[in-house]
Amino acid sequence: MPQLGLLPRKAWVALLSQILRPPHAACPRAVRFHSQVAEAVLTSQLKPNQEKSNFIIKTPKGTRDLSPQQMVVREKILDTVVSCFKRHGAKGLDTPAFELKETLTEKYGEESVLIYDLKDQGGELLSLRYDLTVPFARYLAMNKVKKMKCYHVGKVWRRESPTIAQGRYREFCQCDFDIAGEFDPMIPDAECLKIMCEILSGLQLGDFLIKVNDRRIVDGMFAACGVPESKFRAICSSIDKLDKMSWKDVRHEMVTKKSLAPEVADRIGDYVQRHGGVSLVEQLFQDPRLSQNKQVLEGLGDLKLLFEYLTLFGIAEKISFDLSLARGLDYYTGVIYEAVLLQTPNQAGKDSLSMGSVAAGGRYDGLVGMFDPKGHKVPCVGLSIGVERIFSIVEQRMKVFGEKVRTTETQVFVATPQKNFLQERLKLIAELWDAGIKAELLYKNNPKLLTQLHYCENMGIPLVVIIGEQEMKEGVIKLRSVASREEVAIKREHLVGEIQKRLSDS
Amino acid sequence: MPQLGLLPRKAWVALLSQILRPPHAACPRAVRFHSQVAEAVLTSQLKPNQEKSNFIIKTPKGTRDLSPQQMVVREKILDTVVSCFKRHGAKGLDTPAFELKETLTEKYGEESVLIYDLKDQGGELLSLRYDLTVPFARYLAMNKVKKMKCYHVGKVWRRESPTIAQGRYREFCQCDFDIAGEFDPMIPDAECLKIMCEILSGLQLGDFLIKVNDRRIVDGMFAACGVPESKFRAICSSIDKLDKMSWKDVRHEMVTKKSLAPEVADRIGDYVQRHGGVSLVEQLFQDPRLSQNKQVLEGLGDLKLLFEYLTLFGIAEKISFDLSLARGLDYYTGVIYEAVLLQTPNQAGKDSLSMGSVAAGGRYDGLVGMFDPKGHKVPCVGLSIGVERIFSIVEQRMKVFGEKVRTTETQVFVATPQKNFLQERLKLIAELWDAGIKAELLYKNNPKLLTQLHYCENMGIPLVVIIGEQEMKEGVIKLRSVASREEVAIKREHLVGEIQKRLSDS
Repeated sequence: MPQLGLLPRKAWVALLSQILRPPHAACPRAVRFHSQVAEAVLTSQLKPNQEKSNFIIKTPKGTRDLSPQQMVVREKILDTVVSCFKRHGAKGLDTPAFELKETLTEKYGEESVLIYDLKDQGGELLSLRYDLTVPFARYLAMNKVKKMKCYHVGKVWRRESPTIAQGRYREFCQCDFDIAGEFDPMIPDAECLKIMCEILSGLQLGDFLIKVNDRRIVDGMFAACGVPESKFRAICSSIDKLDKMSWKDVRHEMVTKKSLAPEVADRIGDYVQRHGGVSLVEQLFQDPRLSQNKQVLEGLGDLKLLFEYLTLFGIAEKISFDLSLARGLDYYTGVIYEAVLLQTPNQAGKDSLSMGSVAAGGRYDGLVGMFDPKGHKVPCVGLSIGVERIFSIVEQRMKVFGEKVRTTETQVFVATPQKNFLQERLKLIAELWDAGIKAELLYKNNPKLLTQLHYCENMGIPLVVIIGEQEMKEGVIKLRSVASREEVAIKREHLVGEIQKRLSDS
Repeated sequence: MPQLGLLPRKAWVALLSQILRPPHAACPRAVRFHSQVAEAVLTSQLKPNQEKSNFIIKTPKGTRDLSPQQMVVREKILDTVVSCFKRHGAKGLDTPAFELKETLTEKYGEESVLIYDLKDQGGELLSLRYDLTVPFARYLAMNKVKKMKCYHVGKVWRRESPTIAQGRYREFCQCDFDIAGEFDPMIPDAECLKIMCEILSGLQLGDFLIKVNDRRIVDGMFAACGVPESKFRAICSSIDKLDKMSWKDVRHEMVTKKSLAPEVADRIGDYVQRHGGVSLVEQLFQDPRLSQNKQVLEGLGDLKLLFEYLTLFGIAEKISFDLSLARGLDYYTGVIYEAVLLQTPNQAGKDSLSMGSVAAGGRYDGLVGMFDPKGHKVPCVGLSIGVERIFSIVEQRMKVFGEKVRTTETQVFVATPQKNFLQERLKLIAELWDAGIKAELLYKNNPKLLTQLHYCENMGIPLVVIIGEQEMKEGVIKLRSVASREEVAIKREHLVGEIQKRLSDS
């Protein structure tokens, strides 16, 4: 494990539990505390260096290395996510880590202050990308692509200010899937929700729920309740906190901090506490206030169709139409969604509200047009998987169940019980490598047999080939199973075949 | 293809040919010219936008997006490279895109001016990483790791100045493999060379050669020839140009620009034009001048042992001991190497010298100690694969042979010849997805059958399932092979099994 080798196991587990920033969740207090402990330990560990050379060896604030153990977990997650994207016919795409500064301006509202800028060293002004959605939209506009289904995996960077960001990383990985183009309504949107279900089921994270709403319903509801248009975004961001604050507190914030008339707040309160399935859609069609609003009706009509498709996909029971879902980002224009994990038995005692969302997305029909000189629009819908949040949950579960991770894939170890057998070992291992077999040996002229066998047990290497004088004379090699300790002598020329057979059987 | 849609095919191919900066090669003049043409075309294409909104939609200078076609090629290369690293028992590692500025200082000599700094927005001063070797060494020192075999894949950034950098990208991907730890001499070093051979053979790039030398031989030779120690690095960088300049020109540069005494230059010239196998090693052991130098003798002794191991690995004939190989980076302390591609038939007419190196590396025993407060050393040896250079060669070859790339992996398309079959198509495709089958449909309520079949042909999708009224009645689905146009009716409940059977057979 990286810099935290000296941490007590409990603190280490707690630290892991917040390894990645959830797309949209508060940092639970307990975790925040452990994080401070960890930072203190870390600093004290580093002090000797600081005193000696006035230079601290560390990664920048808010970033971390991934150790080999962590890499195995992350690769497993990415593999599940990307396989699903490919199963749905997505093409790959990659964009640079930085963009022209102006590409990112006016896309993130108040969050723009969190963008990392590069130093002006002459030439263009550049910023590190803040998400993958804006670079994707820039790619479509720049190449005049009107239709594309693609996925995009990469790091993004956010200079989260300490007050809101404790426990959140400043460098984190996003996995996006997007469908761009003019199509018949709700078919791509339904596929995005299907993909979220497949990924969350595939990762075996326990039970989950996807909250769905529509930006037009949110805005229309505000209008119908009497929120002044100038306050839409501010009230939206209050509503967005309902997953971690009670309605009472949110109402208080809206009335006192955002000067919303109490009766308007109450009208909103009546709606945002409702959630349900397609029956809630039907119910709102009849609502005397909302049914007067054109935007709301459009949103409801689309949601009705969406639920029809979700039923055909067999996932309707995973979806909850939730009027409290607002989503902060400016660029959403239609359906929006957010997946949350529900409490599972081994997490009993934790507040299910604190689990946060692990995937989110929505429709953004106007973003590509912002880059087009003539404003030509390309409607888009997409989703982003919160790899880092999922990473911490998977890693936590592995700790709970005591699962061990192999950090290498080595299949065969080449050993000898005798001195002066380096030449034979090198010849033999080259033969294995050339046959595509994953093999290792110790970089010693004369290693002890016990050291070699211990290495195999520690690293989880299943097979050992042993060569010595006796074997040389008889033209054989001993093949040993590390688990059973059984050894058989195999003719040298049959060795590769026998190993391949055993590996394909297992 | 990205921004270059309007380029003539020839210019496009030429541009591709230098898509990525080789680890250590000059940019051939012809390519440089095409690159300028491309830039001019690009600028003129973008002018309309600039005039309208004063904002150019583009990627930052020296960077590019990877289109789906390019992503397929890059993934294929990365897969070959990483598989080989894993075959040799390497663990994965990841480090942040940026480091503390001081982590990178005093590591890259004159090249330090090419480091991208981040803007000072309060807090730590940061820089984008310049290679993966320094972050790896920082990781080892920070975590007090004394022994590790690992690989590291990621983007690095270099603000190449236009005069030396035309045609080189400012953002590019590196794939590193490193062995850290105290071991018996030359065993890990030989494995690094074996890995380079396996990767270059695996990628089928044509014939190649790996030049080998030792930093101690380079320095000892300079001393023995009478180069003042203060000029070692400057003369080293002149020598380094011998793969793209004649000895006459290099000598001229050393004597006139670097004020080296002509007789010293001639002494060097006598050595740096020599290359060969282990016999050259033996020959230099007898050389009256070099055999007096302790450093040279150490280097020669190690090279002799190295060649012994390379012979056991069956790769000695791919390796050339080449006294002109110097390698620019400061941190090398022992054996150094560089792989170059040799002329292949379809590249006839091109100068083989201009192909540049595609992989390089060496031993750096002092770098980790630079980060350790007590200077504790961790000897390391490693290699870096020039993915981008290889990328351009693979892509060029695909153009030459007219190879087509599939950008998706879709196995089955769900089609209908009739109107109002969306519901059935959605139910059916969900069943396929849930069975792990890669499937697509058109996002239209009522697409034409011909449109659907054309889509399959264009995208290279091998199978189509067709559902219509007749099939519904009979409880069957038609399964069509796109290539043979054969259709068979299959009972609905047997469909998934039949598709899986066909896919595993093919």
